[in-house]
Amino acid sequence: MPTHADNPEPAPRQAPLGVSIVAGEPVTPDPGSETFAAINPRTGDALPTRFYAASIGNLNDAANAAWRAFHAARDHSPEDRATMLELIARRISGMAGAIIPRCMEETGLPEDRLAAELGRTTSTLELFARVIRNDTWKRIAIDLPEPRRKPTPRPGLRRVLVPLGPVAVFGSSNFPLAYSTAGTDAASALAAGCPVIVKGHPLHPGTGELVAQAVCGAVRDAGFPVGWFSFLHAGGAREHAVGAELVRHPCVRAAGFTGSFEGGAALAHVAAARPDPIPFFAEMGSTNPVFILPGSVETEPAGIAQHLARSISIFAGQQCTCPGLIFLVQGRATETCIERLGRELAEAPATPMLAARIRKRYLSLVERAIDTPGVRTVQGDNAAIRSAVARPVDSQPAFEKPFLMRTTEDVFLEQETLHDEIFGPAAIVVECKDAEGMLRCAGLVQGSLTGSIFLSNTDLDLARALTGILALRVGRVVFNGVPTGLEVGYATVHGGPYPATNRPDTTAVGPFALERWCRPVAFQNAPAALLPPELRDANEPGTHRIVQGSLTQESITPRKHS
Amino acid sequence: MPTHADNPEPAPRQAPLGVSIVAGEPVTPDPGSETFAAINPRTGDALPTRFYAASIGNLNDAANAAWRAFHAARDHSPEDRATMLELIARRISGMAGAIIPRCMEETGLPEDRLAAELGRTTSTLELFARVIRNDTWKRIAIDLPEPRRKPTPRPGLRRVLVPLGPVAVFGSSNFPLAYSTAGTDAASALAAGCPVIVKGHPLHPGTGELVAQAVCGAVRDAGFPVGWFSFLHAGGAREHAVGAELVRHPCVRAAGFTGSFEGGAALAHVAAARPDPIPFFAEMGSTNPVFILPGSVETEPAGIAQHLARSISIFAGQQCTCPGLIFLVQGRATETCIERLGRELAEAPATPMLAARIRKRYLSLVERAIDTPGVRTVQGDNAAIRSAVARPVDSQPAFEKPFLMRTTEDVFLEQETLHDEIFGPAAIVVECKDAEGMLRCAGLVQGSLTGSIFLSNTDLDLARALTGILALRVGRVVFNGVPTGLEVGYATVHGGPYPATNRPDTTAVGPFALERWCRPVAFQNAPAALLPPELRDANEPGTHRIVQGSLTQESITPRKHS
Repeated sequence: MPTHADNPEPAPRQAPLGVSIVAGEPVTPDPGSETFAAINPRTGDALPTRFYAASIGNLNDAANAAWRAFHAARDHSPEDRATMLELIARRISGMAGAIIPRCMEETGLPEDRLAAELGRTTSTLELFARVIRNDTWKRIAIDLPEPRRKPTPRPGLRRVLVPLGPVAVFGSSNFPLAYSTAGTDAASALAAGCPVIVKGHPLHPGTGELVAQAVCGAVRDAGFPVGWFSFLHAGGAREHAVGAELVRHPCVRAAGFTGSFEGGAALAHVAAARPDPIPFFAEMGSTNPVFILPGSVETEPAGIAQHLARSISIFAGQQCTCPGLIFLVQGRATETCIERLGRELAEAPATPMLAARIRKRYLSLVERAIDTPGVRTVQGDNAAIRSAVARPVDSQPAFEKPFLMRTTEDVFLEQETLHDEIFGPAAIVVECKDAEGMLRCAGLVQGSLTGSIFLSNTDLDLARALTGILALRVGRVVFNGVPTGLEVGYATVHGGPYPATNRPDTTAVGPFALERWCRPVAFQNAPAALLPPELRDANEPGTHRIVQGSLTQESITPRKHS
Repeated sequence: MPTHADNPEPAPRQAPLGVSIVAGEPVTPDPGSETFAAINPRTGDALPTRFYAASIGNLNDAANAAWRAFHAARDHSPEDRATMLELIARRISGMAGAIIPRCMEETGLPEDRLAAELGRTTSTLELFARVIRNDTWKRIAIDLPEPRRKPTPRPGLRRVLVPLGPVAVFGSSNFPLAYSTAGTDAASALAAGCPVIVKGHPLHPGTGELVAQAVCGAVRDAGFPVGWFSFLHAGGAREHAVGAELVRHPCVRAAGFTGSFEGGAALAHVAAARPDPIPFFAEMGSTNPVFILPGSVETEPAGIAQHLARSISIFAGQQCTCPGLIFLVQGRATETCIERLGRELAEAPATPMLAARIRKRYLSLVERAIDTPGVRTVQGDNAAIRSAVARPVDSQPAFEKPFLMRTTEDVFLEQETLHDEIFGPAAIVVECKDAEGMLRCAGLVQGSLTGSIFLSNTDLDLARALTGILALRVGRVVFNGVPTGLEVGYATVHGGPYPATNRPDTTAVGPFALERWCRPVAFQNAPAALLPPELRDANEPGTHRIVQGSLTQESITPRKHS
């Protein structure tokens, strides 16, 4: 976007300044502020920019500005918000040439993946813009009054969703664009009518700051108060403090988190311990179990193995939907499948993990698994794991090759640590004695984002029983496919039972994600002039439109129910 | 219901046995079990039946039976569940002659009120039966596959709500029927497809047991496993233990609570501290602020005062929507209104509170209020309050007359204890200096189920500002009416921000209450034979029906989205 003479805005920066952006303006760091650097995981070298962690003063300014902005602009029209989302998307696209190279350096992720992720980020912003242009996502219901009802008149009730207020967003390390500064949490909160304060991720601070610059420009261009969006760097000694302070701040009315179980559980506790607990939505770890049924493995052991190998190894397995547990019934085809899976993984290249700390945690979890009695290594180098986990792993390239283990049903049922997620390119094959054994294992997997079933026509009975179990334990049941590659649509459920998330009634992705930042309010016998525009009748003055019932179809609950 | 020769079921009991009902059968109490009695609050006398508190063994049996029942019958059709709900309603109506007299003795509530409450209980059961006969409440969304999409095929996704599993229900003291054993929590959970375990309320154990008998009979008649419903007496030393054990039990997958802030907060903590935290929905205290705007009080000071006096005093103010704070702008009409309100309340009869313990808490909160500097008594006897709170109040009749206090805006803004609920027939009038002062007070009221605004045509600007503030702080904004007398409809919101509830995104009343006991699951590329019937296409074998999109109207998100 060129700078025009009549627009004093400077050209978008190509490099981050290293400071937080509070209410649209880069802040001047306090003298002696905590600083930190981003590390290139391909080399272990620190990148040149020093980042200043946000002070409590910066955080207060951001939260108070968000609160004031919310009150000043919460009645801005959905069209204004949709425009803001589209402007954010346009500015992010326009800055792709700065964002993607910086992000590659900070995360080690390849260019094509980041280009695709940037496209998904902007298409998610545009999706929410489309959804909010129509009021029907607000779950409107209208019960008309019956003044002559006996023994008492029936009052009129009109219900709608209203935004909660400023939302704190904690982005993830593994999706530095699509689940970060302008990712699905921020996009859905802005769409719902909530100001956003992002806690920057210390593993991609420069990427976050550049995206935040894009968002702030769009907020301004769309005519929203500058306090509508702030971005706070968090790293070094203040990495966790900034997050906890945000969740505790009285002006913050909800928070969204994507990351580790430990981080999510700690912040959920902070949110619940407030004098006024706030909604806190955490997407955490997930084992994404895969069940390969006997008929299916007979039919195409190699094809499934190839498919799975790519799902396990791509981007060093650092995807929330990476398959970590693979269940098969023992037999010759199963051996073929495992052998082929091991071979495919052996041929997969070593790939950088996102950071030394993530690699270190990965290595220690793999070591714990290989030290579990009854677990064998199929593919991978135990000695290399032990050697790497024993040495400091900072300041080194963070490359890892996939790691495949196998064990039996009995061991899996007994050893609870095998039920935990290993975040990274590792998976455990569990060999079951029979179909019953597979169902027993399915009944013990942890709550997970996904569960996958490979089946052929001969597997229908087992598949039916398994589907029933998985529908109680996962958010998305995938048939004859791998769990990675999340499709964004109306029917998307990116969520699931604890510990995959702490709010299994929600999804972090898709239009339903909007509702997390809202709650319902009913207006009883309200004069038309005091109703939100979307609740007014067409024939009342000042009305905007007629919307239809959203809980249920017209036939059983017309929007106007009398 | 007469006993037929071909039906071995005994005639419904007219009196409770005093024992828990686990999986359809009265349990034989363990020797030496804790027992307790119900007290008639009109006399202070213990009623004859001794009740045996459920043992941990009873509780385990109930929870395990519910778990097995859920797995055995979760695929029962919606029609089966609707029939069960209607049979419950019919059996409760049939037992009204036993339930109402017992309930009058246990609660001190009058016959006409309990008859109306019984009618509301059965009509709520019938409402949920109607709603679940159509699948549209399940928030179905269908994204059709695009096999030829580039670069990757788009998978098909079908989303639906599924029930969570066994639900624990904690009924309230003040609505022994409509928010208790077969009240809105139990009815909505059963409707959603969840087995229910009720923790009986110690203040109306016999009522609860009789209603539980009705529910168990209907469960059996509708062909559900007997474990689908259990009722556990909780009282004496085990009053709190039974509840905490229920919320901790691994087979219990969600819980609903209606009661005090202290009870709700304590159980919410238990739910969150589980290894696998479960959804816990608590409706707690509410101050239900009322704002009488200057034009309105000028027009009809006496009418509003009469209306309010009844809302404060009816059933000794023991309603979750009882108005506890009344804001007016100082002036002559305001004095007339307060004077009239005091006079109306002085003429209201003394009415029994539900129990000595509730009266004791009420008295101590009124005493705390009258001891707050700057608070004056308008109607009520300070000496009587101090005398009653100082003496033991057990074993005495629990009658109280309404109590009205007044204070100023400045005192209200400073004294936070005045912001708390006083459960009982007491209210505090807050005299504001001007419209600005009223808005300042509105910004400080606690999260509440309701907020009411009395306005005339000259009050529109102030009413608009106030509506904006209340929409952030309450679940239902009432215009020119009192908050008591909740209308049950599609647009009902019986909920609100903390501390009124811990889940402001939900409602405890109305069809939307169903969703609390469910979570969404998406099926990706599922063979038709493995889909739940409601997700199948009409032209696929085994299909039941076509349902329509539920997130939004057809025009922006057709159920089938491609």
